[in-house]
Amino acid sequence: MLIQDVRNCAINIADFGVTDLNELKWDLNHLPPVDVGEYIANLSRKQRAIAFRLLNKNRAIDVFEYLPPDVQEQLINSLHDVQVAQILEAMSPDERAELFDELPASVVKRLLHSLSPQQRQVTATILGYPEGTAGRVMTTEYVRLQEGLTVREVLNKIRSQDEDKETIYYAYVTDDNRKLVSVVSLRQLLFSYPDALLRDIAAAKVIRASTDTPGREVAKIMKRYDLIALPVVDREERLVGIVTIDDVVDILDEEATEEIQKLAGVTGGDEPALCSPRVTLRKRLPWLLGNIGLYIAAASAIAPFQEVIKVVPVLAIIMPILANSSGNVAFQVLSVTVRGLGLGEVTPKDTMTLLRKELTAGLGTAVGLGLALATLSMMWSPPNERWVSLVAGTVMAANVLIAVTLGTLLPMGLKRLNLDPALISGPLMTTTLDAVGFMTFLSLISFALQLFA
Amino acid sequence: MLIQDVRNCAINIADFGVTDLNELKWDLNHLPPVDVGEYIANLSRKQRAIAFRLLNKNRAIDVFEYLPPDVQEQLINSLHDVQVAQILEAMSPDERAELFDELPASVVKRLLHSLSPQQRQVTATILGYPEGTAGRVMTTEYVRLQEGLTVREVLNKIRSQDEDKETIYYAYVTDDNRKLVSVVSLRQLLFSYPDALLRDIAAAKVIRASTDTPGREVAKIMKRYDLIALPVVDREERLVGIVTIDDVVDILDEEATEEIQKLAGVTGGDEPALCSPRVTLRKRLPWLLGNIGLYIAAASAIAPFQEVIKVVPVLAIIMPILANSSGNVAFQVLSVTVRGLGLGEVTPKDTMTLLRKELTAGLGTAVGLGLALATLSMMWSPPNERWVSLVAGTVMAANVLIAVTLGTLLPMGLKRLNLDPALISGPLMTTTLDAVGFMTFLSLISFALQLFA
Repeated sequence: MLIQDVRNCAINIADFGVTDLNELKWDLNHLPPVDVGEYIANLSRKQRAIAFRLLNKNRAIDVFEYLPPDVQEQLINSLHDVQVAQILEAMSPDERAELFDELPASVVKRLLHSLSPQQRQVTATILGYPEGTAGRVMTTEYVRLQEGLTVREVLNKIRSQDEDKETIYYAYVTDDNRKLVSVVSLRQLLFSYPDALLRDIAAAKVIRASTDTPGREVAKIMKRYDLIALPVVDREERLVGIVTIDDVVDILDEEATEEIQKLAGVTGGDEPALCSPRVTLRKRLPWLLGNIGLYIAAASAIAPFQEVIKVVPVLAIIMPILANSSGNVAFQVLSVTVRGLGLGEVTPKDTMTLLRKELTAGLGTAVGLGLALATLSMMWSPPNERWVSLVAGTVMAANVLIAVTLGTLLPMGLKRLNLDPALISGPLMTTTLDAVGFMTFLSLISFALQLFA
Repeated sequence: MLIQDVRNCAINIADFGVTDLNELKWDLNHLPPVDVGEYIANLSRKQRAIAFRLLNKNRAIDVFEYLPPDVQEQLINSLHDVQVAQILEAMSPDERAELFDELPASVVKRLLHSLSPQQRQVTATILGYPEGTAGRVMTTEYVRLQEGLTVREVLNKIRSQDEDKETIYYAYVTDDNRKLVSVVSLRQLLFSYPDALLRDIAAAKVIRASTDTPGREVAKIMKRYDLIALPVVDREERLVGIVTIDDVVDILDEEATEEIQKLAGVTGGDEPALCSPRVTLRKRLPWLLGNIGLYIAAASAIAPFQEVIKVVPVLAIIMPILANSSGNVAFQVLSVTVRGLGLGEVTPKDTMTLLRKELTAGLGTAVGLGLALATLSMMWSPPNERWVSLVAGTVMAANVLIAVTLGTLLPMGLKRLNLDPALISGPLMTTTLDAVGFMTFLSLISFALQLFA
């Protein structure tokens, strides 16, 4: 079935009346859980509870994990406590931790009590790690083995496990102290003789993360080594969980969203497209006002030159072009540098290599834009003010080189200080460049005017 | 071993002299292929060939796939033809297609001839699909089964396959015409009775892509359904390949890079941080010059007003702030909308919902920025020009609402036309907004001046 067909099915269910309950029930229990989740999320509150009760027990758990947090919360409130307890108990620990993160503390407290002691402890442990770390996104459901087994015994052991383990494609070998010793893939197990010893086929060099490894670092490691699961160890090198590839895909998307939005001046870089206008305003307005505040510096730089502008009004045309163009250059450099850092293409130790490249290309840009602005202002100036175009072209060229230098060095510097390189957003750079450009430009012009006068 | 340790090892090899050849050989054959690849890529041309010859045959193939295209090409030229043929023959078809993509046509022709007829055909087929489609990134190495088998037979069949198959975690069932019928996961196989029939456990609803499905769509499907492999079918619904999760991770990164860089006005959105300055210049300068060309429109809008500026020089201070702030608003909206479309959070059918949200938040922004600009220009104006601040505040507010509307509608419109929403880059928007803002502002001021005169 093509994805379009799946989608169509999902839409068709939406058209069913309650008379088609049996058909609806079949669909709800057989279509992919993510589609069913989307369908249920789009229903009214009342319909949601009805649809959800049509799900078989295991299905209900699968679908529940795909629901958005607000719908999960509503269902928790409208389902029987026993059913809620069943679902929560069976959820994968990382999804459960994510849900608890979103719920009010009082609800979490009540729900934690409904869990078995084991699951309660697991959840508390995961919630104990800081947000955005491997400890927080890991799941505690994985296959753990002891060294002495044969391949046959391992396969039987995997078969006897709960089918719920998030991935069975890797199994991890630990010693008596739960320290991570080696790893074996299901592929290796299948291609080995049943009587071979685990210790002879398992790889002793296990690539791993620790509980406090940042999510983006986890993603980079898994991408680099083409892993579909990465073991997570605590400070004592004891195995405590695994991060699976589906989490990595989410982390990569979140990281990229953060980079794009932060570069554009959206605070936090985590605004969903369809959030409430209040959230939008909170994430954007303070930043805009702060930037206007900063612009006072740029404007104050012009204010003393009002007399100059009176004498040479063509300046009012040239200055916006100067500002706009050097701002564009800054945005281009920032986007390439910040993204390069995000992807791990470059690290702070490449600063000088990158700067050299940017300055070389920047020279070409400086000449190109300088000539363009000089020509344009030549056309607009009255004959006795043509000398202004020379100054305009020169300042434009200089401003391009400043833009290129700052656009490379600032994110690199932030990264070296272990700060977020995307903190330098494009608009902040353009404001700074405006201030510098205007001040230089107007000073030079007024100096020249005095010289001629 | 922690990732740091792995890295350290990789660095240590670099310090080895040729006297440590045995130790180097051990490392080269036991460290992760990606690390060995990085090490070899950083060697001199001569050292590279030596190091590469120290690799065992299967190792050489693994490592070769991780080398950058220019290093691959150099090695192809410096290794014996027989060895090159062996490596190429054993490479996974998608990696081989990627390599051939980068090589000069004459070299590709020669290399194609060195392949076995089967591999030659596979490569030609993949290269026949357009860039960026599922057909181009898929691999043709997967496990294909016929319906009549039992679980035991299937497992034995998987075991008898070449260990090279890119993923054995899913097996695909096809009919006599090679049409895709159902899918079974290795997990399902392991948890089923050995005598169970394949047709009873395989899922008949197979989520699939066709050869011309765009890469970003493939990534979305696999992310949505948490798949680690996705089957690809041709127009006749025949199974022709699979896309694996490691390709998806790469696609997501490329997509995000494209969005960020295109928004910032980098043509193509695919500039690597460390490319040659010539590439940088080619990707950025034409766009900058084009934008200056566009700015002529904005500037021409001001040119006729030179007299007005002579009379009210505070305008030269207000106008850059007006331009800068509405540009910032546009960048924020664009980043959220383009990213939302990229992630699939919103589709063109959400246009009105999104516009409503943006306009509601935009009203708050308009009031905030309008008041800020009015207050500032009040402070800078001489007493008899205080009325200018009223106009400034009003135009600022209006410009914010225009920015918000365009920033939502333009990318949505492009997407609806099946074009790339990131085509509307931020700087293009800011130039347009400058033109509109300046024209309105100066027209109103000169109208007011005439009224008072």
